[in-house]
Amino acid sequence: MDLLVSGGTIVTMDPDRRVIEDGAVAIEADTIAAVGARTELESRYAKCRKLDARWTLVLPGMINGHAHAAMSLFRGIADDHSLDDWLQKYIFPAEARNVTEDFVLWGTRLGVLEMLRGGVTTFADMYYFEDVVARVTKEAGMRGILGETILDFPAPDNPSPAAAFEYTQNFIDRWKGNPLITPAVAPHSIYTLSEQTLRDSAALARRNAVPILIHLAEAPFESRRSQEQHKLSPVAYLESIGVLGPDVIAAHCVWVDAKDIATLVRLGVGSIHNPSSNMKLASGVMPVVDLLAADAAVGLATDSAASNNNQDLFQEMNIAAKLQKVTRMDPRALPAQQAVELATIRGAQALHLDQQIGSLEVGKQADIVLIGTGATHSTPMYNVYSQLVYALNAHDVRTVIIAGKAVMEDRVMHTMDKPGILAKAHEYQRKVAESLIVAPVI
Amino acid sequence: MDLLVSGGTIVTMDPDRRVIEDGAVAIEADTIAAVGARTELESRYAKCRKLDARWTLVLPGMINGHAHAAMSLFRGIADDHSLDDWLQKYIFPAEARNVTEDFVLWGTRLGVLEMLRGGVTTFADMYYFEDVVARVTKEAGMRGILGETILDFPAPDNPSPAAAFEYTQNFIDRWKGNPLITPAVAPHSIYTLSEQTLRDSAALARRNAVPILIHLAEAPFESRRSQEQHKLSPVAYLESIGVLGPDVIAAHCVWVDAKDIATLVRLGVGSIHNPSSNMKLASGVMPVVDLLAADAAVGLATDSAASNNNQDLFQEMNIAAKLQKVTRMDPRALPAQQAVELATIRGAQALHLDQQIGSLEVGKQADIVLIGTGATHSTPMYNVYSQLVYALNAHDVRTVIIAGKAVMEDRVMHTMDKPGILAKAHEYQRKVAESLIVAPVI
Repeated sequence: MDLLVSGGTIVTMDPDRRVIEDGAVAIEADTIAAVGARTELESRYAKCRKLDARWTLVLPGMINGHAHAAMSLFRGIADDHSLDDWLQKYIFPAEARNVTEDFVLWGTRLGVLEMLRGGVTTFADMYYFEDVVARVTKEAGMRGILGETILDFPAPDNPSPAAAFEYTQNFIDRWKGNPLITPAVAPHSIYTLSEQTLRDSAALARRNAVPILIHLAEAPFESRRSQEQHKLSPVAYLESIGVLGPDVIAAHCVWVDAKDIATLVRLGVGSIHNPSSNMKLASGVMPVVDLLAADAAVGLATDSAASNNNQDLFQEMNIAAKLQKVTRMDPRALPAQQAVELATIRGAQALHLDQQIGSLEVGKQADIVLIGTGATHSTPMYNVYSQLVYALNAHDVRTVIIAGKAVMEDRVMHTMDKPGILAKAHEYQRKVAESLIVAPVI
Repeated sequence: MDLLVSGGTIVTMDPDRRVIEDGAVAIEADTIAAVGARTELESRYAKCRKLDARWTLVLPGMINGHAHAAMSLFRGIADDHSLDDWLQKYIFPAEARNVTEDFVLWGTRLGVLEMLRGGVTTFADMYYFEDVVARVTKEAGMRGILGETILDFPAPDNPSPAAAFEYTQNFIDRWKGNPLITPAVAPHSIYTLSEQTLRDSAALARRNAVPILIHLAEAPFESRRSQEQHKLSPVAYLESIGVLGPDVIAAHCVWVDAKDIATLVRLGVGSIHNPSSNMKLASGVMPVVDLLAADAAVGLATDSAASNNNQDLFQEMNIAAKLQKVTRMDPRALPAQQAVELATIRGAQALHLDQQIGSLEVGKQADIVLIGTGATHSTPMYNVYSQLVYALNAHDVRTVIIAGKAVMEDRVMHTMDKPGILAKAHEYQRKVAESLIVAPVI
């Protein structure tokens, strides 16, 4: 046995949702070998190296189901604008002027660093120069489902969908089989891609047996256009052209009706809730309660730091629970335990990785976070799920273990150079700010 | 000159909303003596003791307009229940069994400690044994508008409204004129009090020239009952019996129409927005944008840790901004700067204290917080308001100065015994948990 996480309250998120007070988790190589009472595991593995977990909640690593990590360098460049102004006057010009391989390198490092420090151990990402994203993720010791964004117009790296497809095939060839990295195909959305590009994307994914990442049913204009052009909802349209299936991970799914929800469930599509982004950009409210009532695979996510403006899944759990309650005018909607499920086991289902991650169970990957409970704002504690969702926050995360390796211990990073990353982010801040001073591109 | 806060970005919240890069604030006794460029103030006050504010945002102390600080000991005892179950099966029985003078002493210490650590320098509070709340507030060096809750049924300390009135008169006599404490009269709400008690409360306040704290138009049932009983909205009813005026601080104001808003503005009533509590208890969404369009005095608040579950105004700024956007489906609604205003200068207006606090201006009280900007989650920074609302959080607060005195410096408490308070909170956790095991009272 390699490591015994010992003495905390184990929030297993297993099928029985066991919470083990004064428990322990034994790790062998990258795998969970035992979960149980501390006294029992300490005597069984008496010689094993111990990691003191007293005064912590021990949770499965949290899963951020939709991100654009490199955009952390654009944190808050253009808030409180209309969606159109935000995209056309700020984000697209800022990307055209700034996004290089080096930008993605340092932006992803910044985003990954923030996620790790907040207890995220797995993220799904779609951006540009995704090979760099994969390298950063691997070097950080993090788990990622990563896809190069496919667009019908020129992206910062690929001038055409054909180039993006070629990039993606090479990317898949390079990363498939990596224990931490799952390469994916990432067509941007139905409103930026032709039917042909969408079909080709799905075909590429299925030829390679990798997942598909896509934005779906995010904003009212998307639904409106889909109805105008196809007489179908976004979900129904994507189904009609054969893109939806048990390998799809669809971000947002805000504008879905009962029929769309049935489609997502029937086809095994994972849906990712981004409450902060959806509120801040005024996209709408995902009907999470209805999706869960239909037993859909729903995950939780931060979206990018340009539309949030952080990578903090604690905040998303908090806001997700409150948003469903007020939207439905029912304080019982999306209780705390379900919010934790979105960030762990159900999020793993949505990413189609629930055989490997999402709960503390024997045989699963040892992705584990220790969350300190000794702070003023988390005292007293009556219920672990309430505390996780409504009181604790990203800064309370003490230690993060991924595939059996500690990437952060007592808030000290083992795999990333925090001062170096922040220094580089300040350099980019000056460059990006200068690039926005000239007239908008459009 | 006693202290020069020197080198930070001064976010003044003055009438011009000046933001001074590399600025300084000079403090003499309890008062702000100068605000300006660092170089200028450092040469003018060369011999003054300096407090290094580099790498921080220097903000007016934040104002929590509605709290029940002692309920921090009930943090999360009963989440995700219907409002009726929450009150009848948990909160009222828990209060009946647990709330003593000692409970209020330690509960308020816990709540005040959390607020101070999150940059709150002024809070409005209504609870029981309010004299203890005032003692704790003074001993912590914090500013408070405090009122003993008046109920028509027996409270944990006073058996009747008459007893509560007598308590309140003594409370006012003891605290009026204290530089930190503003005593108030705190009738609970229109749905727990008779017209006579409401009128008597207002008369008591006006005889003593102190403010009135009240819950108003919080939940749909309150509006429904008011319409049934009085054929008036809660706001119109309170106006009709002469309670509303420029000394009233009304928490919630969720269910207000255009006419109610005009009434609140015309009479100079302060309204307090509690977004987390209103979402979590499914009370509804305050029309903040409409209130601000009418130039109403609107503050921001956490409500109690039993309905939130924290005392974190950063979270409230964040959620307030996002909630207005998604509710109105307009990403421009409640921009970041306005959210900061709710927590500072406009919050001061809502508490009728804007001559003393709420901005960094010469002659105002030296209530100042320093917020560190060097963390991963707040790098890079393009706009100070965006950063305050969407990226920074309570844990980033480094130093808190109230009336010229540092109560926390670089996160070390000077006026409160944090370990002692947390130890006592754990004792109470056991007591409260045991008290809830027996059958509900009802």
